[in-house]
Amino acid sequence: MTVTSTLKDRIENAELLAKVVPVEDAVKHVVHGSTVAISGFTKSGEPKTFLPALAWHFSQTSPEARITLLSGASLSEDVEGPMAPFIARRGPYMSSPASRRRIHAGEMDFTDVHLSAFARNLMYGFYGDIDVAVVEVSRIRKNGSVILTSSVGISAEALARAKKIVLEVNTSGPDYTGFHDIVLPAVHPHVGWPLPLVNVRDRIGTPYVEFDLSKVVAVVESRTPDHPVPFKAADDTAKRIAEHVIDFLLRCREQYQWGKRLPPIQSGVGNVANAIIGQLYDSPFQKIRFWTEVFQDGMLRYVEDDQKFEYASATAVSFSAEGRQRFLDMFERSKDRLVLRPMWLSNSPEIISRLFVIAMNTPIEVDIYGHVNSTHIDGSRIVNGLGGSGDFFRNAYLSIVHTPSTRRLRDGRTVSCVMPYVRHIDHTEHDIKCVVTEQGYALNMDIRSPKRRAQDIIDRCAHPYFRPLLHAYLDMAGPGDEPRASDMKVLQGWWADYDAATRAFPQNG
Amino acid sequence: MTVTSTLKDRIENAELLAKVVPVEDAVKHVVHGSTVAISGFTKSGEPKTFLPALAWHFSQTSPEARITLLSGASLSEDVEGPMAPFIARRGPYMSSPASRRRIHAGEMDFTDVHLSAFARNLMYGFYGDIDVAVVEVSRIRKNGSVILTSSVGISAEALARAKKIVLEVNTSGPDYTGFHDIVLPAVHPHVGWPLPLVNVRDRIGTPYVEFDLSKVVAVVESRTPDHPVPFKAADDTAKRIAEHVIDFLLRCREQYQWGKRLPPIQSGVGNVANAIIGQLYDSPFQKIRFWTEVFQDGMLRYVEDDQKFEYASATAVSFSAEGRQRFLDMFERSKDRLVLRPMWLSNSPEIISRLFVIAMNTPIEVDIYGHVNSTHIDGSRIVNGLGGSGDFFRNAYLSIVHTPSTRRLRDGRTVSCVMPYVRHIDHTEHDIKCVVTEQGYALNMDIRSPKRRAQDIIDRCAHPYFRPLLHAYLDMAGPGDEPRASDMKVLQGWWADYDAATRAFPQNG
Repeated sequence: MTVTSTLKDRIENAELLAKVVPVEDAVKHVVHGSTVAISGFTKSGEPKTFLPALAWHFSQTSPEARITLLSGASLSEDVEGPMAPFIARRGPYMSSPASRRRIHAGEMDFTDVHLSAFARNLMYGFYGDIDVAVVEVSRIRKNGSVILTSSVGISAEALARAKKIVLEVNTSGPDYTGFHDIVLPAVHPHVGWPLPLVNVRDRIGTPYVEFDLSKVVAVVESRTPDHPVPFKAADDTAKRIAEHVIDFLLRCREQYQWGKRLPPIQSGVGNVANAIIGQLYDSPFQKIRFWTEVFQDGMLRYVEDDQKFEYASATAVSFSAEGRQRFLDMFERSKDRLVLRPMWLSNSPEIISRLFVIAMNTPIEVDIYGHVNSTHIDGSRIVNGLGGSGDFFRNAYLSIVHTPSTRRLRDGRTVSCVMPYVRHIDHTEHDIKCVVTEQGYALNMDIRSPKRRAQDIIDRCAHPYFRPLLHAYLDMAGPGDEPRASDMKVLQGWWADYDAATRAFPQNG
Repeated sequence: MTVTSTLKDRIENAELLAKVVPVEDAVKHVVHGSTVAISGFTKSGEPKTFLPALAWHFSQTSPEARITLLSGASLSEDVEGPMAPFIARRGPYMSSPASRRRIHAGEMDFTDVHLSAFARNLMYGFYGDIDVAVVEVSRIRKNGSVILTSSVGISAEALARAKKIVLEVNTSGPDYTGFHDIVLPAVHPHVGWPLPLVNVRDRIGTPYVEFDLSKVVAVVESRTPDHPVPFKAADDTAKRIAEHVIDFLLRCREQYQWGKRLPPIQSGVGNVANAIIGQLYDSPFQKIRFWTEVFQDGMLRYVEDDQKFEYASATAVSFSAEGRQRFLDMFERSKDRLVLRPMWLSNSPEIISRLFVIAMNTPIEVDIYGHVNSTHIDGSRIVNGLGGSGDFFRNAYLSIVHTPSTRRLRDGRTVSCVMPYVRHIDHTEHDIKCVVTEQGYALNMDIRSPKRRAQDIIDRCAHPYFRPLLHAYLDMAGPGDEPRASDMKVLQGWWADYDAATRAFPQNG
């Protein structure tokens, strides 16, 4: 086919240039029953041209086709939405309403795995053969190795393990050469090795991905930039949570003699995370480092300030439309202050522990003992998945779970995000060192039974309106170091009282 | 005081020899409010003379005294029992009936932490100052550094952080020189470093512990050998579980192309663990390596067989009376085939992951989705604690939870160890790859929603007698990928049916 000059500029390898085909042809390599592993993490670097074309192809030729789709993390709805009807099995993370509906209905099998483990399991062969890898790249080098784009996720593992490879060359964005640090995990019976990484800025791999060129069955062009993600500004609640987090960090600096060096920060996404990143900028901490999953809008101002900021490591950048423009404006400067790594490495327990990372994430709800539900509404229906929260909470130097103390539901009720128990546990009390809400923070760092810790979490973190109900639960919970009410009738009464309280919450309606 | 010649032989350092005092004097360094960190792990290497003497001292002089007691893991009841009335705070693991009673009654605060995290938290200062370290040693070297005994646990951290040190020189056992590999974890703001350990047999530290001699306030002699632990022989159920485990491992060897090299094995304690270790010996696997917490009776025969066995790494040896004698008989031979390390290292996520360890532990109960309760009866009352199960399950190459499908209670009922939900979760479904009972095994390694996995766990692992009840729960659980019944009345009905079933179980009395 005729290859545009823009595309030619991005493909320096003649063998692969000869494999450029229209996407309509490329999608035929995926058939019913295929396992497909793709690039993409928090809507960045996904195959934005291939997947919608594949969905169209299936809808026209084989509406009964079903595939297994594996990605780094979430895809944009423009990409996953049309594909959802054709996905039988999905992992390890999604935020697609279309997929979620099918998962809840039992039409799509979804496996929720720690992101670091997922990438390694893929290499170990636990998910079987990878039939086709579809990976977005920004450039194909002379020897055929590739430069990825705005995310790394599982791209390198997909290219290493797939039987067939489709490369999607994105000509709409810049050439990302210099942003990546690529290295594959060891696989038994090969001997594992210590990762020679002791600073956030250390690079231990290559800036490109090498793989077996003979497996490439198609190269397609994409002219679609990453779909922007909404930027959630901090509200008053988020700001108060952020204040408590900064307070806690300042207290730790004093108590544990950090000196001027704040340990590297991992921060989730959302408005609370944005508030924390914002207030951290205005805090006394200098030379801040991020060891995190996603580099986002709120971190952009750091890149402009060499006093405030030292370095960031992530597996993806993910921006609003405005943030993306700002990022592109300082693209060259960013290259010296930001590195993107495979998600097994960004989320590596070994590195998170070694670097003393401070982890912060928002759950759906916490319980009075410090157990955390990050994934399932009513304990039954998955929202997005676990992502990397477990990788970070478990291995962090300090693990902070932050949530508003209440949440307003669409039906008008206001529920407590601090509950007597949560019906799906993703992170146990063993992994959480600090619970923060806009009310305050409670520590789980000393030698103290869960029952006494609970008093603290209720009195410092729960909304005052719900505190009497939570204390009432604890009073009736009976003996034990971490007592749980077991009498069903009593429990039923508690839930009835709680339900009435959620309807009578003062700010409701 | 007069020092016996046996003791003199063990103390080569003159400064410390001069500090030998009767234990009755040494205990006075511990006072009401002290935080005391001691040696000891699974009843091995504990200060067997000091602690009972301290308990006697308190009972005679200050019955109101309360201290914080931190150890590696469990102590023998001879040691912890007398002390229990004087312990206000305890961590991170215990198996003492006396302590357990006080914990359940809310008289003793107990903190349950992953063992690897506990040792690091101690170094980080999260548990505050350590007033006194009491550590059993087998020899004091010329320069004052010490050789530990049958366990390492937190001994090195205790010696590093304590303000005062009491050394308990055990003259009843051998000189353990050559068995240990001692290294301390890095503490922020020092830079963490990669652990240069890529084989089970690699040693990365020193065979002795160095510390500030000026902190030693007393040296006491102990003539008490480690209290023996009961050896639980494998019953038929344990043997059938072990057969399924070996089957699973052989299947993995084939499927994941291990060749002849079985990844290192971590094995818990108890009769199922003994059955597995026993059958592993009779399996086709050769050159077996253990990367585990405790080296026990069942592993002794390996040491005699260079074909079957390569090397073992643990943080303690723990034997029955008979096992201990056998171990002493081949003490020199063992030295070349076994190393004891600090528990932060034996349980290090970095190393467990790098070495592709296969982890196996017994829980109290599992649920149909693969969540595991390892610690709390009825979700409320702690048994022993988490120990290292989370360190190993989370970071293992393969994580295997094994349990009999039913358990007979003292009241005559027979309960199912596979439940619709467990009321305390220590390990989530995300961390478990294989559930084994004497009925069979179910995998959690592929891309599959929890609801479908549940069908498998019920049909392959639950006792046939309880399967209809478990399916009934799943049928009423409603929509979702991991559905949980939420209607309290329906739930109440299910529990009533279940309770009746536990009483009517065919083999019951």
